[in-house]
Amino acid sequence: MSLQSKLAQATGGVMLFGVTPPRRSATPEKVKEIAEVTVKRLAGLDLDGLILYDIDDESDRNPEERPFPYLPTMDPAEFYGSYLGAWDKPAVIYRCVGKYTPSALESFLSAADPAKVLSVFVGASSGDKQVRTSLRQAQELHASVRPSLPLGAVVIGERHARSGDEHLRMLAKQERGVTFFVSQVIYDLNETKNLITDYFYECRGRGVDPRPIIFTLSLCGSEKTLEFLKWLGVDVPRWLSTTLSHSPDPLADSYRETLSIARDLHGFCTRLGMPFGFHVESVSIRRAEIEAATDLAAEVAALLRG
Amino acid sequence: MSLQSKLAQATGGVMLFGVTPPRRSATPEKVKEIAEVTVKRLAGLDLDGLILYDIDDESDRNPEERPFPYLPTMDPAEFYGSYLGAWDKPAVIYRCVGKYTPSALESFLSAADPAKVLSVFVGASSGDKQVRTSLRQAQELHASVRPSLPLGAVVIGERHARSGDEHLRMLAKQERGVTFFVSQVIYDLNETKNLITDYFYECRGRGVDPRPIIFTLSLCGSEKTLEFLKWLGVDVPRWLSTTLSHSPDPLADSYRETLSIARDLHGFCTRLGMPFGFHVESVSIRRAEIEAATDLAAEVAALLRG
Repeated sequence: MSLQSKLAQATGGVMLFGVTPPRRSATPEKVKEIAEVTVKRLAGLDLDGLILYDIDDESDRNPEERPFPYLPTMDPAEFYGSYLGAWDKPAVIYRCVGKYTPSALESFLSAADPAKVLSVFVGASSGDKQVRTSLRQAQELHASVRPSLPLGAVVIGERHARSGDEHLRMLAKQERGVTFFVSQVIYDLNETKNLITDYFYECRGRGVDPRPIIFTLSLCGSEKTLEFLKWLGVDVPRWLSTTLSHSPDPLADSYRETLSIARDLHGFCTRLGMPFGFHVESVSIRRAEIEAATDLAAEVAALLRG
Repeated sequence: MSLQSKLAQATGGVMLFGVTPPRRSATPEKVKEIAEVTVKRLAGLDLDGLILYDIDDESDRNPEERPFPYLPTMDPAEFYGSYLGAWDKPAVIYRCVGKYTPSALESFLSAADPAKVLSVFVGASSGDKQVRTSLRQAQELHASVRPSLPLGAVVIGERHARSGDEHLRMLAKQERGVTFFVSQVIYDLNETKNLITDYFYECRGRGVDPRPIIFTLSLCGSEKTLEFLKWLGVDVPRWLSTTLSHSPDPLADSYRETLSIARDLHGFCTRLGMPFGFHVESVSIRRAEIEAATDLAAEVAALLRG
């Protein structure tokens, strides 16, 4: 069954891998090489599709210094269209909508082929940020220009832990045409399960079918990556943060913990009847962490295909 | 290896079962019958000892109505001494020290046989409560009258979640002669693992050996038991509380979740090098919940003996 069908029918079982496009400064030859290596690395995995990130500066998110420097990256739609021809499965193209004018978003929507492309619209990383298009405007454009393009939204357990209304935001996004959700990187099982439960029973109360949530998993192989996760707003429970900081092999420890989170969510959602999937990405650019992420994706896919 | 040796050498691997003595209003014949049934029920389990509770009113703990009525129970030392002769392993006798005068505690300490009896001293359930003996006074009595009697203390993850200093309280209790800890009923893994981690690394920083923590597990087979757990001050994560409230079989669901908590803590403490054990009790008086608690103790003991 295709990614689009799995999402449309909310069957669950979706397995994705997240890729950050090459730096904007890379030569076409370099980009071509990166695309080849990426497709080769991911071809052996039992994936339903790729996620292609749209990297935004996000320096407004956090006054602290960004642990990894911000480097402008290629437009994911261009990377997909011009370089990933060898990738024969769909791609979920992210759009930080605030970066684009409504007409640029309209062009993207018009050009996208719903047989191959899906999109996730991401709002501004802070309320103060100047935006060219708001998330709501972008969702309205999608509804009028290209409603057949499957549209997702991000869901953030941390926001739910603070304000307790993320499940209502999800339902509001659903009403504006969103048919699936992709989570922020998950390290706090409790807050994730609180969100799922609140969403599931709110849907039931309204007589609405819950839409699939794709849970994002990412390893943490160093103190620097841990800092970066926290900078991104990921809640890492104190015991886990302390464990990783004291560990002689944080990559192995975070691998074990992340896989344990995947197993727990798998059992939990299956029992509840909540459609779900997984998405493995690497927030780090270190080779060992990227390779371990590939292994993790293989193991999580096997868990899903179970 | 005996319970006393396991605790003294902090080897871990301790498995206990908690029993509430019969009501004070029961006739001697009834108490004898209860004792026989209890010993018969627990004889088949691979236990290191019993915990015998000292039930206090605790109405000061919470202005809300107590979901299960408070019924005065027999003195656990009397129940053990006069009725549990057929139990051939040690008993950990609880003492809510505020109920007793210093001389009554002194008699208890003098009479107790350290080959068979251990004790856990429990302080007042709220700061406002009138006490005959404070926890600190009681610990000082133990140190002067009977330091050879292994003495434990309670440890409360919920208190750590609020104030963040439970690990320092543990170390202070250790300095006053406490050699092991028994937790409150555990339903929140995150806060329990935060406490263990903070305690473990605080011990390491001070060059002190960590003392064993016995984790208390208790099933929750009905809405009423769930209410009682919350009344007792147990933090039940919202997702789990919602799951149990919606469940057609909360006893089976809480059994699965509790066993999963035990497995998680087992792996976590083993990797960390933290000495630990388990204690299964039933906060409910319903027959089905007590029988399920016996099954749970068998399964957790098998996990420990692994």
